[in-house]
Formats: sequence, C-alpha cells, structure tokens
Amino acid sequence: MFKIAVDAMGGDNAPQAVVAGIEQARDRLSDVEFMLFGQLDKVAPLIKNDERITLIQADEVIEMAEEPVKSVRRKKQSSLVLAANAVKAGEADALFSAGNTGALLAAGIFIVGRIKGIDRPALMTVMPAFAGPNDNFVMMDMGANAENRATHLYQYGVLGSFYATNILGYQAPRVGLLNNGTEADKGDQVHKAAHELLQYGADHQLLNFIGNVEARDILQGPADVVIADGFSGNATLKAIEGTALTLLKLMKDSIMSAGPLAKLGGALVKPALKTMQERLDYSKAGGAVVIGVKAPVVKAHGSSEAETIANTMVQIEAMLHADLVAKVESFVAEHAADLTVQSASDDEK
Amino acid sequence: MFKIAVDAMGGDNAPQAVVAGIEQARDRLSDVEFMLFGQLDKVAPLIKNDERITLIQADEVIEMAEEPVKSVRRKKQSSLVLAANAVKAGEADALFSAGNTGALLAAGIFIVGRIKGIDRPALMTVMPAFAGPNDNFVMMDMGANAENRATHLYQYGVLGSFYATNILGYQAPRVGLLNNGTEADKGDQVHKAAHELLQYGADHQLLNFIGNVEARDILQGPADVVIADGFSGNATLKAIEGTALTLLKLMKDSIMSAGPLAKLGGALVKPALKTMQERLDYSKAGGAVVIGVKAPVVKAHGSSEAETIANTMVQIEAMLHADLVAKVESFVAEHAADLTVQSASDDEK
Repeated sequence: MFKIAVDAMGGDNAPQAVVAGIEQARDRLSDVEFMLFGQLDKVAPLIKNDERITLIQADEVIEMAEEPVKSVRRKKQSSLVLAANAVKAGEADALFSAGNTGALLAAGIFIVGRIKGIDRPALMTVMPAFAGPNDNFVMMDMGANAENRATHLYQYGVLGSFYATNILGYQAPRVGLLNNGTEADKGDQVHKAAHELLQYGADHQLLNFIGNVEARDILQGPADVVIADGFSGNATLKAIEGTALTLLKLMKDSIMSAGPLAKLGGALVKPALKTMQERLDYSKAGGAVVIGVKAPVVKAHGSSEAETIANTMVQIEAMLHADLVAKVESFVAEHAADLTVQSASDDEK
Repeated sequence: MFKIAVDAMGGDNAPQAVVAGIEQARDRLSDVEFMLFGQLDKVAPLIKNDERITLIQADEVIEMAEEPVKSVRRKKQSSLVLAANAVKAGEADALFSAGNTGALLAAGIFIVGRIKGIDRPALMTVMPAFAGPNDNFVMMDMGANAENRATHLYQYGVLGSFYATNILGYQAPRVGLLNNGTEADKGDQVHKAAHELLQYGADHQLLNFIGNVEARDILQGPADVVIADGFSGNATLKAIEGTALTLLKLMKDSIMSAGPLAKLGGALVKPALKTMQERLDYSKAGGAVVIGVKAPVVKAHGSSEAETIANTMVQIEAMLHADLVAKVESFVAEHAADLTVQSASDDEK
C-alpha cells in the first residue's frame, strides 16, 4: 500500500476539488492511501466516504501569492509543510499540492530533500507531441531555477530519461537540448558545455542524446525528453501556452464576427475543435513533477478540477509503482563520476 | 531620393521574387532608388522596367547554410558584401537581404558598423498584438546574441522605443522586459540588473518602462516594446511560431477527419480562418531589423514572395524618411552617461 500526502488546502478550488479528486482516485487506485492535510472543519464535511483517507489538522494555509521560501520556513503548521514533513519522516511516500508552485518546490527541495548527486532539482512537465513516434514528451526545467549550469542540464537528461522510460514506457527515450539552433556549437557557453556533457553521457551509455532541438519544433515530437535551462524553458512553455490560448480565442472571434454562414460552420466544427483543445490541455496528462528529490513531489495546476487531480494521483501511483526515485538514486550513485564530469567549455563557478 | 542596396541573390526565391518585389516597391515609392547587387546574367533578364533600378555585378553568392561571419569575411565579391560596402561608402542609405540571416547580421555589424554607444546590435521583429491599445509590438533580441548583459537589454529599450515612436507612431511606447515573472525581483542576475537599469532609464525620462512581462501574455499586447536576451527571445519567438503552425495544422486535420458535417463546417469557416492566418503572419508587417547599426539593415524571411519584399521596402523607406538612425545616434550621444550606467546587481565582466 502506497501513501500519498495531500495538501488539501492548495489550489483555486480547494478544498472541494481536492477532496472530490482524492475520492475519485481512491475509487480508481486500490493500492493507495491518502493523508489529507488541512483545516478539519472545512475538509471533513466534504468527504463522502473515508475509506483509505486520513485527515490531519493543519492550522495554516500558504496562499498562492505568498513568497515561496519564506512561507515554507515560517508556516510550519501549514497543510503543505505538514504534508512534506510526513514524507520526510517516512509516514508518506509522495507529496501532492495544487497550491503555490514555488512553495511546493521549496518544500520538495528543503524538506523532502535532494537526491544525493543531483545538484538542482527541476520542474518537469509532460507535453503533447503532435507528430513523431510517441504521443508525449517531457520537458524540464520549466522554471525551478532562474539560472542553470551545464552540469544541471546534463543531469536533467538522466532524470528525464528515467521518467520517460519508466512512466511513459518509451524505449531509449531521445534526449534533446533546447537551443537556438540545431548545430552542435550553438548557444551560449552554458548550452555549448551542456551539449558536450550530454554527448559524453551518450558516449558512456547513460542516455540517448540526439543533439539540439529548437522551440519551433518541439511540439512535433523530435525528442522524448527536452532539456532546457529554467529561464528559457519557462519562457518557451509560457509562449506555447499563450499562443495556444490566443489562437483558440482568435479563431472563435473570427468565426463569430464573420457572418451567419461562418457561424453555422463554427457550430459544425465545434466537436472537432473540442477534441483538439483537449489534446492541447496537457494538464490532463498529469501534473508538473519536482524531479530530483527523494520522493514523488507533484503539482497540479491551481485551477484543477477533481478529474485532473484524480489523474495526477494516477501519475503519482505510477511513479511509486515503478519505484522511480529508488531507481534514479541507485543509478546516480553508481555513475557518480560520470555525472559530475566537467566540460572543457564549462568555466563557470 | 533614398537609395536602398539590395542583395538580389538572397532568399529561397531569389533572384525572381527579389526583382519582382523591387519593381512593385519602385512603383509604390516615388522617393527611392534601388541598387541591385547580383549575377547580371541572372538578374538583368528579369527586370521589366529599369526606372530607378541600377544593377551591379557580384561574382559570388553567400548560401543559406554558410557560416555567417566566415562567409562575410571571405566572399568579398558576394552580392551581400558588395551591397553592405555600398552603404558603408555612403553610396546607399540602407541594406536589404532575404538570404542568410547570420551573414546579414555580420555584414550589418562589421561592415555597416555599430552606432557609437550601442554595445550589441540586436535583431528586432514586429509582432501582432491581439489585444491592448496597439495592433503591433516590437520584440528584440530575436537571437543576434547568444548571451546578453544587462546594459545591452537596457539599450534595446531605447532602440525599440525609437522604432515604435517613429515608425509605428506610438506615443511613449510601453517597454516591457521579458522575464519569468512580473515581480521586479524576478529572473536571473542579468534580468534583475536589466530591470534596475530600465527603471533608471524611466526615472531619467529616457523611456517608458512598465516592468516585466511574461511570454504567456506578450501576444495580448501588454507592451509595445518587448526586451529579451537573445537566447530566450529566440526561444520565445520560435515557440510562438511553432505553436501557431502546429495548431493551424491540427485544426485542419481535426476538421477533415471528423466527418462530412465538420467538413462542411470547415468550408464555411475557411474565410474567417484565412483572415486570422494573415493576421498571424507577421512577415507581412515587414522584415526583421538589425537595430543599433549605422543604417537601416533589414531582413525578409527566406521564403518571401515579391509582395513581402515590396512591403519590406516600404518599411525601410519609413525608417529612412523618419531619419531613424540619425535620431538614435544623436540621442545616444546626448545621453551617453545615462546609457552606460552600471547596475548595482550587474557584477558581470
């Protein structure tokens, strides 16, 4: 039986959506128990069936807009911090929140703790691939770090490969480095050095590096694992989101303002567009993973409804079932020397 | 009378599309003469009317895939290098190519030359804004530089403001810094320092800085001038392009595979979608500008047809007519001290 520690107070629709999602997940997953941390007077009345659900009182809540690191340090009685402490103490196996992303990241890194040998945990997300051999790809760092060194990016290649292999079921996942051109010598110093280290990793059979990929192409699935520094990874993900939202709105506006025939047409294409929109909504594929820490730590979007939260529990169960963290830990320990090798181009501090 | 030096051999459809575009532009612009540099045996037979068009023989061509800096240094008889030399010698007022972007950039920086006081010229593009007070915004650096210092980003704010004011006609254009959050303290060291410098510039009435903007929002027009470092600016632009292309294709596929009613609907919404697609195609709004050099240096997309090339000539004429470079030069000279101020956070080399 796996135990997932849940921040019941995190998210725009908490605690209602969280509790409803956990109940859905409990009905779908027979091997999971849920520990819900939150304000009992608010959470308890929402629970319809408490089978495999335990409630733990948390006096405080970390709000969406709070400064992440400070709030995690100060609000020791918050639902998030108590849930993270349960993981640290071995009472729970994984941590979930739909609340403040930065606070979950801080709780993951400072309370759950880094995997030994991984310098900088990252935020990883699963994205749709609209062409290529596989339906999805993973991308990291989505913004856990504002600055990355080449070694971090190299280690992300290993972390992402483990996820893609064990959770998505891809064989020898293709690792690509997000860069400003496909040639090997492209990019700034960090990316040139990261390319060398990833190539070193490929030469030593640690991962399947296929070279640089460009932001223009990633949705076409040229790589199963896209490695980015946190700054440009964040910009790329947000540009994809913003463009998709803008286009869908523009499409609706164009159709609605173009006369009665176009409106009729719009009604007829609506089901097809809905299918497309669902395919684009990668939050349905699961939450963002704080990868590189000693337990699955997963974030669902703040606006998540019950179904998305239940899907995220399925994702966490898969990570627990695959024993992902232990596999990464033993791989990193075994290949410590190869994973801390310095690039000739990497003259950073 | 203005003179534009044209690389007649650059671009996928050169020299046909270039010559046809120049003839269209000549018919639209009464105050411009064109110097076409290229292989005379290929270019001359394409010209229908040589009014205000002069041909100059160039023995060499820089191909799309050639290494930019080397090709500009070595191919001294290429159409691009000869055209750039004409600008340097004062025989022409502006430089145009639809060929190798990197080579045009190198020709702009090393032959035409930097404006004194501007440390790193940038590649700037005009993008559509789908909400907000104005129809377009300018964004830079799109990738001229793989690495930028804070001072460069600050200077881009000034360059972009001059373009938005003088060419787009915006009053006190709103300058935003592309960052991984809207709060003033967001980003890596370069972006934190750039924020301080841009704020300093606003405090000293050099520009109208509105703070950080995120890649998710820029198509909604929160800023008229979006400042980015070349690496994440490049990733952001490419992510926007790739997402738009993927979505439009997906939409067509969804409609075509969804049965006869959806197909009928698709036919009915086609005109509306075409309007939208045209609005998205920012290459129609003009070319990418190498900004910060001593003359207008402008690049059209490699796949440009005649009309896009003609539109780009209209854009160049507007820059010449507004005397943009001279205005920037005198502003930069006058405010040299304010534009080279160091940020407290900027401890870079």
